[in-house]
Amino acid sequence: MTANTTSADFRIDGDRLWADLTELAAIGAYDDEATGLVGVDRQSLTDDDRAGRRLLISWMEELDLDVTIDEMGSIFGRREGEDPELAPVLIGSHIDTVATAGAFDGCLGVLGGLAVLRAFAEAGLRTRRSIVVAAWTEEEGVRFGTDMLGSAVAAGRLGLDYAYGLTDAAGLRFGDELMRIGFRGDRPVLLDPPHAYLECHIEQGPVLAQEDRQIGIVTGVQSISWQKVALHGRAAHAGTTPTELRIDAGLAAAQIVVEVRRMVDSGAYGRLRATVGHIATSPGLPSVVPDRAELTVDLRNPDDADMARAEVDFAAFLDTLPEAQPGLRVETAQMARTKAVPFDEGVQDALEAAAKEHGYDSLRLMSGAGHDAQEIAAIAPAAMVFVRGQYQGISHNPREYSTPEDCRAGVEVLAAAALELSA
Amino acid sequence: MTANTTSADFRIDGDRLWADLTELAAIGAYDDEATGLVGVDRQSLTDDDRAGRRLLISWMEELDLDVTIDEMGSIFGRREGEDPELAPVLIGSHIDTVATAGAFDGCLGVLGGLAVLRAFAEAGLRTRRSIVVAAWTEEEGVRFGTDMLGSAVAAGRLGLDYAYGLTDAAGLRFGDELMRIGFRGDRPVLLDPPHAYLECHIEQGPVLAQEDRQIGIVTGVQSISWQKVALHGRAAHAGTTPTELRIDAGLAAAQIVVEVRRMVDSGAYGRLRATVGHIATSPGLPSVVPDRAELTVDLRNPDDADMARAEVDFAAFLDTLPEAQPGLRVETAQMARTKAVPFDEGVQDALEAAAKEHGYDSLRLMSGAGHDAQEIAAIAPAAMVFVRGQYQGISHNPREYSTPEDCRAGVEVLAAAALELSA
Repeated sequence: MTANTTSADFRIDGDRLWADLTELAAIGAYDDEATGLVGVDRQSLTDDDRAGRRLLISWMEELDLDVTIDEMGSIFGRREGEDPELAPVLIGSHIDTVATAGAFDGCLGVLGGLAVLRAFAEAGLRTRRSIVVAAWTEEEGVRFGTDMLGSAVAAGRLGLDYAYGLTDAAGLRFGDELMRIGFRGDRPVLLDPPHAYLECHIEQGPVLAQEDRQIGIVTGVQSISWQKVALHGRAAHAGTTPTELRIDAGLAAAQIVVEVRRMVDSGAYGRLRATVGHIATSPGLPSVVPDRAELTVDLRNPDDADMARAEVDFAAFLDTLPEAQPGLRVETAQMARTKAVPFDEGVQDALEAAAKEHGYDSLRLMSGAGHDAQEIAAIAPAAMVFVRGQYQGISHNPREYSTPEDCRAGVEVLAAAALELSA
Repeated sequence: MTANTTSADFRIDGDRLWADLTELAAIGAYDDEATGLVGVDRQSLTDDDRAGRRLLISWMEELDLDVTIDEMGSIFGRREGEDPELAPVLIGSHIDTVATAGAFDGCLGVLGGLAVLRAFAEAGLRTRRSIVVAAWTEEEGVRFGTDMLGSAVAAGRLGLDYAYGLTDAAGLRFGDELMRIGFRGDRPVLLDPPHAYLECHIEQGPVLAQEDRQIGIVTGVQSISWQKVALHGRAAHAGTTPTELRIDAGLAAAQIVVEVRRMVDSGAYGRLRATVGHIATSPGLPSVVPDRAELTVDLRNPDDADMARAEVDFAAFLDTLPEAQPGLRVETAQMARTKAVPFDEGVQDALEAAAKEHGYDSLRLMSGAGHDAQEIAAIAPAAMVFVRGQYQGISHNPREYSTPEDCRAGVEVLAAAALELSA
């Protein structure tokens, strides 16, 4: 049954997938006050993460996978192909969560990978290449401060020492916590480049729902620039200080917020997205002109050149602020900066063909968020399949939801592409 | 020596005034981290306030004043005139402070009043009308939340029950705290209208320094409107949510800040001043479009009609925000609203003549801040003299400073006007 297999030869068990997602989401469950729903808080290297990892491994063992754990705690379950010497097809994502998560982010990709191998096993399908399902450690970065940590170390972008030395808000070291939960494995962390890397993930955005498509073929990950801007003005009495003598840090902050939206609306920076998520003034009293304001500026762009131009023009705008208010001091700090990562055309084509074969309408789109796939893309052909979300694709929130049908559809596409790429 | 007395007949002891200010400022002194200076925190009805009150009374007794305390704890020291039946001239201000105060705000007016009576006593000057020096309770409003509390109750604008029922951040009642420090007096709180009311105060602004005048004759207190504006948008992922689908509460907040400055700059609202002191977004994360923002809007105007027009146009602007971002919800709450209070022309003229007589350059100007004088102005002719401040007139801050010479000048003008009005 190895030659000329097609998707007709296997069947994804959507009920089992849904039951697995539900069972895993019960670990770290909490009552979320803001939504009135049950959310998930299963941050990396916590006791709950350990429990989730153990459950995952039990499912891998149930499928007779060869389970290994690397020096970062990332978990690999391998189904041997007919030619074990060939580089495997790797399917990955993560099971750690943010503090206010739903059941799908990351987990769908890992449990979807298991659903693929389960389907192949049940169908008696052998693949030429081995297929490995990976769960990367600390993708969210909420506990130790660096996103995509496990995959970044596996791909060689970050070092093991760097990762081990990271500390959480309580001062606990990543390396110590990894030992504590018993997940410092002996598999060398540097990953041998797989033949291809696939990741199935919820979209975390509204585009697929809006365009009425079930499947997204992800063309790459946007460039991301995070800056913190601090403005230093002069505190002054609201009632007595003439307008022309003010150095109003809050006004400058507001002008920045309005300007970044103007930049987006201008269309001059391609598909620029800009967000000011945090704005705060000090001392923050109604009758005192703020002497200090700070804000964060999140710029995203699928095109590196458009992004660079936006950054240059934004910096030039900041330079004009002290001209309007002499004495104003502007400080900026880069919090994060990643280049755009284009995904492999061949892997995208395989995913698109798989979607078509299963009768799903697909759409090619960029990922706005970061994913493990962008790290592995540095060493292997990689691409992602996105699953449609409900409620505008809300994510990092207990309201995060994709229907059982849409989850199954994404995993079917994942399976068919894995079958093709491992043939 | 009662007829045709002139300022040549008395001499303000500037050294003693300075020593008194310094001694009072030592009560409630603290090391201010932000400035590296020693500040004053002597909020009303605290143990330190009690100590300050006792010191003040000891100075009043040293001058043989008749000391009474009213039901609000406000302290009165009376120097009898030749005709005790005539309504007295009242000189007042306050000795309570904000949490980060300097030595001058309020205290200069009370201790300056004592300096006036001391000068008259030393010169053997008798006045026809009695002169009373008052220290009003809780002018700052920082502990119990209502500004000019003691003078407002004395003038009949607020009731005693209202004041007694106010609570501080710890839930302690004003009435209980007044009893606790032993300053609930038996003098009926409703004030018999004085012949005139005078208050000497630091400017708390930069105008006198900028115009190089030592003395300000205060024409009145501006109208003040404080609003809190809460904006409810929708949280969304910064990377994945298309701009046109966002309901960005932070953007709306920024647009408000820019608009109120535009209103000021337009000149269409007379001498409008506008301040947004507090801006904050929630959840406040770099990668999340804010679902909530709040800000305070402080509008001030010496003209009530200009103020009303500014408020109407500002409200109309707020109404346009949901048109630009459908789904945005705007909530406003009025935190405070006072009308403009014009001071008495005759008392202003007396102060101006006094300044001229002493050779000081004076300037008529509005007060941007609230003062006890605006409460007493409801029942008696009132006006104020402003003393020039250093460092742009910074106040409510340990850097607050007026020179000994400028303090003495202000008190000389106060004395000469009191002499004229009590003749």
